[in-house]
Amino acid sequence: MPSVSGTGVPSFDTTTFLDSLKLHPRSHAFTMSTAVRAPGEASSSKALTHSGMNSKLKDMKYAVRGDVPIAAERIQKELDSGTSKRPYTEILACNIGNPHSVGQTPVSWFRQVMALVNCPELSDTANFPEDVKARAKLIRSQVGGGTGAYSHSKGISAFRDNVARFIERRDGYPADPEQIFLCAGASAGIEKVMSALIAGPQDAVLVPIPQYPLYSALITLMGGNMVGYYLDEEKNWGFNLATAKEALAKARADGLNPKGMVVINPGNPTGQVMSQADLTDIVKMCKEEGLLLMSDEVYQENVYVDNKKFVSMKKVVRDLGKDYDDFELVSFHSTSKGLIGECGRRGGFMELCGMDSGVVSEIFKLACMGLCPNLDGQMMTGLMVDPPKEGEPSYKLYHEECSAIYSDLKRKSKIVVDALNDIEGMSCQVAEGAMYAFPKIDLGPGAIKAAEAAGQAPDLFYCLALLEETGICCVPGSGFAQVPGTYHFRTTFLPPADKLEDAMKRFKKFHEDFRAKYN
Amino acid sequence: MPSVSGTGVPSFDTTTFLDSLKLHPRSHAFTMSTAVRAPGEASSSKALTHSGMNSKLKDMKYAVRGDVPIAAERIQKELDSGTSKRPYTEILACNIGNPHSVGQTPVSWFRQVMALVNCPELSDTANFPEDVKARAKLIRSQVGGGTGAYSHSKGISAFRDNVARFIERRDGYPADPEQIFLCAGASAGIEKVMSALIAGPQDAVLVPIPQYPLYSALITLMGGNMVGYYLDEEKNWGFNLATAKEALAKARADGLNPKGMVVINPGNPTGQVMSQADLTDIVKMCKEEGLLLMSDEVYQENVYVDNKKFVSMKKVVRDLGKDYDDFELVSFHSTSKGLIGECGRRGGFMELCGMDSGVVSEIFKLACMGLCPNLDGQMMTGLMVDPPKEGEPSYKLYHEECSAIYSDLKRKSKIVVDALNDIEGMSCQVAEGAMYAFPKIDLGPGAIKAAEAAGQAPDLFYCLALLEETGICCVPGSGFAQVPGTYHFRTTFLPPADKLEDAMKRFKKFHEDFRAKYN
Repeated sequence: MPSVSGTGVPSFDTTTFLDSLKLHPRSHAFTMSTAVRAPGEASSSKALTHSGMNSKLKDMKYAVRGDVPIAAERIQKELDSGTSKRPYTEILACNIGNPHSVGQTPVSWFRQVMALVNCPELSDTANFPEDVKARAKLIRSQVGGGTGAYSHSKGISAFRDNVARFIERRDGYPADPEQIFLCAGASAGIEKVMSALIAGPQDAVLVPIPQYPLYSALITLMGGNMVGYYLDEEKNWGFNLATAKEALAKARADGLNPKGMVVINPGNPTGQVMSQADLTDIVKMCKEEGLLLMSDEVYQENVYVDNKKFVSMKKVVRDLGKDYDDFELVSFHSTSKGLIGECGRRGGFMELCGMDSGVVSEIFKLACMGLCPNLDGQMMTGLMVDPPKEGEPSYKLYHEECSAIYSDLKRKSKIVVDALNDIEGMSCQVAEGAMYAFPKIDLGPGAIKAAEAAGQAPDLFYCLALLEETGICCVPGSGFAQVPGTYHFRTTFLPPADKLEDAMKRFKKFHEDFRAKYN
Repeated sequence: MPSVSGTGVPSFDTTTFLDSLKLHPRSHAFTMSTAVRAPGEASSSKALTHSGMNSKLKDMKYAVRGDVPIAAERIQKELDSGTSKRPYTEILACNIGNPHSVGQTPVSWFRQVMALVNCPELSDTANFPEDVKARAKLIRSQVGGGTGAYSHSKGISAFRDNVARFIERRDGYPADPEQIFLCAGASAGIEKVMSALIAGPQDAVLVPIPQYPLYSALITLMGGNMVGYYLDEEKNWGFNLATAKEALAKARADGLNPKGMVVINPGNPTGQVMSQADLTDIVKMCKEEGLLLMSDEVYQENVYVDNKKFVSMKKVVRDLGKDYDDFELVSFHSTSKGLIGECGRRGGFMELCGMDSGVVSEIFKLACMGLCPNLDGQMMTGLMVDPPKEGEPSYKLYHEECSAIYSDLKRKSKIVVDALNDIEGMSCQVAEGAMYAFPKIDLGPGAIKAAEAAGQAPDLFYCLALLEETGICCVPGSGFAQVPGTYHFRTTFLPPADKLEDAMKRFKKFHEDFRAKYN
């Protein structure tokens, strides 16, 4: 258990966290080697053996598609076969922010423009509004060789211009298209920056706890160290400057070399929307302490509470004035989230501010090695940031579709959080934004013992049982990290409202039975 | 200069090659830091400086989008501005295998199916053949959540089935869809395998010289060692077993730990098509020596000579019989090449054979971290391997379009190779396949001296001059590696035939002037 500091938030003990990973090698994710190799199967004759492969990759954990989703895949096959006697007929995938996979429909305008760009012969026959045809024509002129050609490795210049104008409208400050890289989803951008940042085994990056496991995974893969700073659950997963500074000081005392800091706003898995005051504290801290700031803003459109709004880190930095002109910031955005939820496109961008020009060149070289992000994802990014305007023929439908998705997400965030809070032994902060709730569960000592006997982290044990009994697929909190001795899980609120309402009833029943069984 | 061994091919001296990289830090590619940082600009106040960043990324070279294309970008802007007094009006991009960027048009069928899948509302209005509509309907049922959803991280199951059936038809041996990963281009698959393979600073991978610089780049980035084995230029870039074994023995004597071997067939940048006999030698060598074999087969459709045909490495392995059932092979294919040339889609796949199941799981975990390859690229891959069949309504047009592209590529390969061989002081092997010619140039001592004075590799110096004078953009041989003391460049033969013919005239004049100027 961590010591509780004067800040009201336990300080993050890196050693304890890493030890816990070692104690439960299968608890946080995904070390499948023992599971999939048949007993007695020899592998020593192989040129590439599991023991001889890159240990950083082996050590890497990635929970979002870890043990629970793999079990769900197995159960789905059983359900598909028609031989299942389970009390449910389908898996409810609450493990990943993948809106279209659970019934959200595409916003028409994007698909119309894309179809005309990729297949110009449709222009004559398609019954599309004039602005769709005009936009497709414009894009065809902008992409030069068409969507079948590799583009500039940063992405099509016109799309990067669109992004820059979007950032300017959003923040009220200039943006330079040359400092914008289109990426195959935010993940691909984050990977590039981490690859440049982590130079040696002492290098470290501050990451919120709980965190999106892409960060811990990349830091492990690049051979660096994750230094967690706890968010304050009781203050709706709020940022606590003193806690973060303590974590930083401890990392330095341990001989680590912290070089960067990650912020996820709105939060994943925690759903909070951060205030400009907290963001300002973070920027000041990074400047004082010499940290590169990475701001994950993929949920910037997903704010559901009336008393908060998204403020970009770029705006926070520029609001601080001239002293922060050179401040080093990379911000990430994606086509996968927001209201469009076009995950399969793998579109997104990052904006680099104040970065050493030599470093930018090396990041560009890395982008060149991958040739370019896919053109459909690039196009989707360019469209996302420059949608139909009021008065244009497509505006009405576009606006209606987006509004409906927004209202639905807002309503479902409340359905899920309220239902979870209605379960005894469970407490859930308000999901102010993003696509997730991250409730705390009181498992009781009996369940913890049973989990240990099964060689599983208690929250994994719980989520696997939940899946088996109800078909609801969530991700255990240990995949995101949490205060030791506490247990959480992450659930999306993306499936249709009626299914969520049904699922929450099954959930309540399951939880009561689970508690009764083990305690 | 390397020693000439009894095999008729110089043995590859790793030290010399690496030293040459160090001696000419800007010759092979792309270390831009000094070029782009303004004089006197301080960077020491940055959290992430060029000197403090990941040195493996800095050391990495990637020539295909290196110095020459960057100069071309600058000249293009000058041309666009209308103020240029150059004797040409456009850059002829021969630096990259990017067919659509230089005028090749998309094959209609793919675009039609994709448009209907992404935008189902078109089904009623589009004037498309019935088989297009049926295929789109089938795909919509296969992708479940649609193309806007993340898929399984290996790719949509039905598309992997398509790939497996394609491999079976091609080779006459079974293929397992579970061992097939769809990737964002072959590059993304190669990166994953390299990431698993290279575990420590002594680990090494055998790579043909000349090679596609993705391999050297990835090996550097992962912290391993590239061990080159020379192809025999005089035998049309043929494989020489003795040379490869010598390179392997020398690497081991140097304390390295060779774990894998790369083959590129048809060759890039060299355009040769390898015989089954040579491929069999390679497989036997890898088995004897305990090497994982990586077979880059992205140009498998691009064979232009009548006396040769592509044989897949998978077929070679299976033809060797039961003793090779466990042979470790990864083969790569792409939507970017062949006749469709859909580079912008970032589609492709890799097939894993005989791999340790634990290693496969770790590669899968890495794929999970990136969520999934983009769905349009996946769809294009699924379509590429299962095109219209004879008798189906779309077959005629599909066949006509593909045949026209094939004939055109075949003709242009001959135009370029013949024209280059017609230039004094230049010799070019037959481009049997792929999209490239890789001629040897006799620069003469004066040019070499001038290049040294300019701090450039001689072939870079030559290619930059060629670009300035003629607008033809090629990649210097040093970006691919070559026998020390020899100079080459890579050119595609993708631009339209009339432009290529014109360009070759300018090229001849340039070469004569260049030789006269410096010697």
